[in-house]
Amino acid sequence: MATNITWHDGLTRRERNEARGQKGYTIWFTGLSASGKSTVATALEQHLLHLGVAAYRLDGDNVRFGLNKDLGFSEKDRNENIRRIAEVAKLFADSSTVALTSFISPYRADRELARELHAKSGQNGDDALEFIEVYVDIPIEVAEQRDPKGLYKKARAGEIKEFTGISAPYEAPEKPEITIKTHESSVEECVAQIVTYLQGKGLLAASK
Amino acid sequence: MATNITWHDGLTRRERNEARGQKGYTIWFTGLSASGKSTVATALEQHLLHLGVAAYRLDGDNVRFGLNKDLGFSEKDRNENIRRIAEVAKLFADSSTVALTSFISPYRADRELARELHAKSGQNGDDALEFIEVYVDIPIEVAEQRDPKGLYKKARAGEIKEFTGISAPYEAPEKPEITIKTHESSVEECVAQIVTYLQGKGLLAASK
Repeated sequence: MATNITWHDGLTRRERNEARGQKGYTIWFTGLSASGKSTVATALEQHLLHLGVAAYRLDGDNVRFGLNKDLGFSEKDRNENIRRIAEVAKLFADSSTVALTSFISPYRADRELARELHAKSGQNGDDALEFIEVYVDIPIEVAEQRDPKGLYKKARAGEIKEFTGISAPYEAPEKPEITIKTHESSVEECVAQIVTYLQGKGLLAASK
Repeated sequence: MATNITWHDGLTRRERNEARGQKGYTIWFTGLSASGKSTVATALEQHLLHLGVAAYRLDGDNVRFGLNKDLGFSEKDRNENIRRIAEVAKLFADSSTVALTSFISPYRADRELARELHAKSGQNGDDALEFIEVYVDIPIEVAEQRDPKGLYKKARAGEIKEFTGISAPYEAPEKPEITIKTHESSVEECVAQIVTYLQGKGLLAASK
């Protein structure tokens, strides 16, 4: 009979990482609509899973229609959208999973907040969670030419208000960990560039 | 030169489960403050991790001070608190991780919403995600006697308003998948009871 319950604090992140055999961190993609964020993030997710690394991608499909379905597109709601995504990415990273986020995330301040949340996550002797910003850098002309969803066309026609790059700003990262150019490199080359970075940082076993 | 990007839909849940070698689902603990939810959930999390099963626990510590730090304790905010937790648990389950949630979650309607979100998660030929409600059922007298954080005492003194079981209702589950009684069974016995249930449902390899 256990009338006296011991109140556990739970596992430390270090203990969880050891049990899971891997470390979690966040790879944050940012770039214009149609820059190739989701394509590269999806390919990277698949690559990591094939290596036996637990990874999960947060994107518009699984976040905007679920957790953030109460949010619109006002500036306040956009900030809150990115804040929640950053918090959820941090939870995934804390759970020893590689979190990949692919959202335009046009504002520097929002991305800095996401970075700060991770930087402040060290506790109980655990290191802070790594935050890797990947800038998907393409000229807007290329993005507009691709326009797979016809969004640029609608933005030009005034049917979509405050469209990033057309009628709303995109604030390019000043010091992203990685810059990829999907108009100059293939998806596979972009993935390889990120994988090389992760290996160099000891975030991915090079032997796998 | 890849000017034509292929637009991936990403992995299906089934493909991710195969790559990860496990299925995700949600184990939702509900019960009074001091009922033993977090203690059992933490012990279960550790047990699963030791079996090699990816698991992660969402609780007040990692949610209330992060994702849901903008929420107070009004009825609307309490609903929104549980809604977001349910959405995040669903994301973890979708990522092939066993999500454990330990929140009082006193309202039946909120828990039903969490269950519904999972029930409606089947798509692209993927099965819906399992939702397992664990009712941590103890008499309020026992919870009040334990009172490890002195919360019942404060609630009785009127220092905490709308405290579940004292000045706010706790709506017990009508058909929980599992009922555990931490005043009659040890933590280990409670964990074993849940593990037996999971094995019976094919959610945990019995051989491990």
